[in-house]
Amino acid sequence: MAIIECIPNISEGRRQDVLDACAAAIRATGAKLLDVKPDTTHHRTVFSYAGDPAQVKAATLALFDQAIAAIDLRQHQGKHPRLGAVDVVPFVPIEGATMAECVALAREVADEVATRHGLPIYLYEDAAATPARRNLEDIRRGEFEGLAAKIAKPEWAPDFGPATAHPSAGASVIGARMPLIAYNINLATDRLDVAKKIAAAVRHSTGGLRYVKAMGLPLEDRGIVQVSMNLTNFEKTPIYRVFEMVKREAARYGVNVLESEIIGLVPSAALTQSAAWFLQVSDFTEGQVLENALRLGQ
Amino acid sequence: MAIIECIPNISEGRRQDVLDACAAAIRATGAKLLDVKPDTTHHRTVFSYAGDPAQVKAATLALFDQAIAAIDLRQHQGKHPRLGAVDVVPFVPIEGATMAECVALAREVADEVATRHGLPIYLYEDAAATPARRNLEDIRRGEFEGLAAKIAKPEWAPDFGPATAHPSAGASVIGARMPLIAYNINLATDRLDVAKKIAAAVRHSTGGLRYVKAMGLPLEDRGIVQVSMNLTNFEKTPIYRVFEMVKREAARYGVNVLESEIIGLVPSAALTQSAAWFLQVSDFTEGQVLENALRLGQ
Repeated sequence: MAIIECIPNISEGRRQDVLDACAAAIRATGAKLLDVKPDTTHHRTVFSYAGDPAQVKAATLALFDQAIAAIDLRQHQGKHPRLGAVDVVPFVPIEGATMAECVALAREVADEVATRHGLPIYLYEDAAATPARRNLEDIRRGEFEGLAAKIAKPEWAPDFGPATAHPSAGASVIGARMPLIAYNINLATDRLDVAKKIAAAVRHSTGGLRYVKAMGLPLEDRGIVQVSMNLTNFEKTPIYRVFEMVKREAARYGVNVLESEIIGLVPSAALTQSAAWFLQVSDFTEGQVLENALRLGQ
Repeated sequence: MAIIECIPNISEGRRQDVLDACAAAIRATGAKLLDVKPDTTHHRTVFSYAGDPAQVKAATLALFDQAIAAIDLRQHQGKHPRLGAVDVVPFVPIEGATMAECVALAREVADEVATRHGLPIYLYEDAAATPARRNLEDIRRGEFEGLAAKIAKPEWAPDFGPATAHPSAGASVIGARMPLIAYNINLATDRLDVAKKIAAAVRHSTGGLRYVKAMGLPLEDRGIVQVSMNLTNFEKTPIYRVFEMVKREAARYGVNVLESEIIGLVPSAALTQSAAWFLQVSDFTEGQVLENALRLGQ
């Protein structure tokens, strides 16, 4: 059975009753709610749920119904950039599901919410219709406040729905992508310049690894610095390679890796591939993991 | 839902029709058959199946029925030591099951097959009634041919069933243990003495790690040597610690680790704990593995 995960971000992080109603609507569809992470400063909440394609579709439609009824972006202020009441909705293949199935699901959901709510929809990442729309930041630039002007330009006509911003809900960005791993490495130093240089060395945008986003940050309360990363395709740019590269770059400055952190969930295969690499296991397959064999048993 | 695995060894490795009948009988109970590994030299087959306690119990009783009807140890010759037609039956906690539940299941099955087949049963490992019966090799010493004399001694009275050997099926050893990992490390050398010295350094019996059995072997066709190991409790003696110790001992002789091998199945947690160790992940929990979160989702 195919399992797809969806990790929508909505522009509400403060009213608990709204978040509770969203969670209840998701659960009522049979999808498994994995996580609800509100951020009051950003005034934004990340949901995570999974299930078969039909459950995940129903849960996402239910979330749109709740969020669009409750959120008015004209009254919304938060630190995080946002384009819509339901801001961004990625579908992720987890088990027995292909990226193509996630792209198809993204298009189905986009079509249905555009019609049901009169909402403009942009498709992004692997579901993007053109390379210019792959990147979320490009689509979101100008935010809700700039949307009316942006959407009128031919190059920013939406992929589904009307070419006018929804008055209270703006527009939504829906797509498909690989599982993302939030991975941070803490350095045994307070030298922020070192963290920034390492981030620049490993991230894709400045010459580093293809599927790494990174920045150097101070952890002021602990007196240390962090290389804070998103790994956007662990199959092609594996965790262990990122870890070893950061460690080597840090050594260049006489700095040790203190520890690393995995924030939130991580696919099992991202860890088993790392274990197999460090342990130098030859001919290792995911089918050797007992729990995988159990799921696929004869 | 609790999942228990059972990995019985039967004294038949040549007649495919007998093995097919055993496999069919196991599958008919709803247990998932994970593996069937016959060895013609040993004249012995290892089955592996898993399911909830009721399924695993039914599958084990069905396997006893098939094997005892088909196997006559008076006609059996093989290289591997054996005491019974169904030689050894370990139950292993996999998911949501405790060792105590596996011990209880071992006793239930022992009681039932003893009554049904008039078969003497010894309990071993975590199900053993006394420390002297923990170790399979001690129980099996003397084999089928020596059983009639051994079982007459008061200290070898069986835990269930009559104190006389079954004429064709001998006796069976049933118990509970942690998942066992068959783990080998191949060295980039043909020096057998180095493999033997490393095995002696890391195994429990000669002063090494508590849950490691090890021996040094030549891989003659490849011109290299191997440290061949069984890891009997990966939670207390983790794979990464064994790997690092073997690597360090090898370096003492100027030898590199060429690669390692995991034979058969390995519990997911054994690899995720290794990945977390090598990656220096702080505060890692198994609940962060996406697949685990999915199974336990709200």
